[in-house]
Amino acid sequence: MSFAEATAVSPGATEPPPPHLDRFDVTIAEGWDILGNANGGYVLATIARALSATLGRPDPITVTSHYLRPVSAGTAVVDVETVRVGRTLATGTARMSRDGNPLVEVLGAFGDLGPDGVDPDAPRLLRGEPPELPPVEECISMASASDAPTQFSSKIDLRFHPDDLGFVRGQPSGVPRMRGWIRLPEGEPFGTLGVLLAADAFPPTVFNASLPVAWAPTVELTVHVRARPAPGWLRGTFETWFVSGGRLEVSGELWDDNDELVAQSRQIALVPRPTS
Amino acid sequence: MSFAEATAVSPGATEPPPPHLDRFDVTIAEGWDILGNANGGYVLATIARALSATLGRPDPITVTSHYLRPVSAGTAVVDVETVRVGRTLATGTARMSRDGNPLVEVLGAFGDLGPDGVDPDAPRLLRGEPPELPPVEECISMASASDAPTQFSSKIDLRFHPDDLGFVRGQPSGVPRMRGWIRLPEGEPFGTLGVLLAADAFPPTVFNASLPVAWAPTVELTVHVRARPAPGWLRGTFETWFVSGGRLEVSGELWDDNDELVAQSRQIALVPRPTS
Repeated sequence: MSFAEATAVSPGATEPPPPHLDRFDVTIAEGWDILGNANGGYVLATIARALSATLGRPDPITVTSHYLRPVSAGTAVVDVETVRVGRTLATGTARMSRDGNPLVEVLGAFGDLGPDGVDPDAPRLLRGEPPELPPVEECISMASASDAPTQFSSKIDLRFHPDDLGFVRGQPSGVPRMRGWIRLPEGEPFGTLGVLLAADAFPPTVFNASLPVAWAPTVELTVHVRARPAPGWLRGTFETWFVSGGRLEVSGELWDDNDELVAQSRQIALVPRPTS
Repeated sequence: MSFAEATAVSPGATEPPPPHLDRFDVTIAEGWDILGNANGGYVLATIARALSATLGRPDPITVTSHYLRPVSAGTAVVDVETVRVGRTLATGTARMSRDGNPLVEVLGAFGDLGPDGVDPDAPRLLRGEPPELPPVEECISMASASDAPTQFSSKIDLRFHPDDLGFVRGQPSGVPRMRGWIRLPEGEPFGTLGVLLAADAFPPTVFNASLPVAWAPTVELTVHVRARPAPGWLRGTFETWFVSGGRLEVSGELWDDNDELVAQSRQIALVPRPTS
């Protein structure tokens, strides 16, 4: 099942929503999960597809997702409320629910990152660069590194910087960072919705830290999409600077083959203590 | 008028809200604006106070604000919807409106950053430090540097790194960064709501860039509050890494006198071309 199929939305037929909402039916597909919980970027991309449809704008510009409950595979509804439709941006909220229980809440602004929407002469300043990575063929897939790769790792083609995958052998690098190449399988283009998936597809950075942290559930993820990605591989780097107060942040960048910044991301995650 | 007074909220008496919303009346105070538009951090703090009241949790953990229209001084309503109340976090959305027009939309998760809410033995890793600043008395206030300081600069006591205030004399540093000491006047404590103000109180970083950008209206601002601030000065650093696609981001950190990370922030702003 392609990313586009897995994130499909259709106008809601199951039950009438309140009058100020647009309701969509969605199906969280099998295999896009880690230990039964659907990947947060995948879920965000699905909700963003519904928002984009209601708001009539193709590209997420900035989207923020709050993860309220684990999302298992199966049907759900997404209710979209239009907040404001402006000239440059259209803004809305969306809630994914199941059996009346909210699972994920999203607030986002959408626009047009195509030629009509972006001024080619706009001021430009890049003070950073794409992450330095060995060539794709020298980077390492999860499937080749792990005895028990998750099904999710077949949904997205991820090749890690060799220095960043030691954690699967119990040898974390000591630096809470994950870098690698990423693309969708079978030549499917990311588009700007796929960028939302890519922004949350790397393993937790904290797996490479020497800390007693087994998992870091995301509370909130914000993605700023800067450009429609060129076809082919993206390069991603995700890094944590501060683990404090029972939480950590992850800041990410995604770059395309033209050395264009495609997106920046930041999330805040809980740092549960091991329950041993 | 203190920050606490300027951000006061009261249960809405003006008109009945829809049944699933909590309505608050607020007054955007005079003098908290730049050229007539109320400061985004001040507005966010006001809305967060309403969210905190409805959700019954004292501290914003992660809040995201979308600025839809300029906010002038005067009365407005804030409608809060509870999305989920969990054990650790409570999540809600809030909309500030005037005459039925949405001005600002917020999505936030609130919790308890007091002794009962934070595990003192939680894993900890700080890979960064507070910004290096000269002592407060060697830093420079806007009032002493500018011939025409805004009224807003009297609402908050801000002392800039000497290298970062050249822009007021038409001599930008060339580095899109603003660093300085910040506190509320007359010994008023920030608290975690005041931290939201501090996260958006510095001038635009782009004023220190050598780019044809006169203003950068914020589309979206997200603040992660990590700790309740100690009394006294905070140190802030705000920096832009990428101006591209007609937008720029600003990433910020706020630290307190105990060298504790109080908050991280990130915003995305539009980069309008000069209209000359």
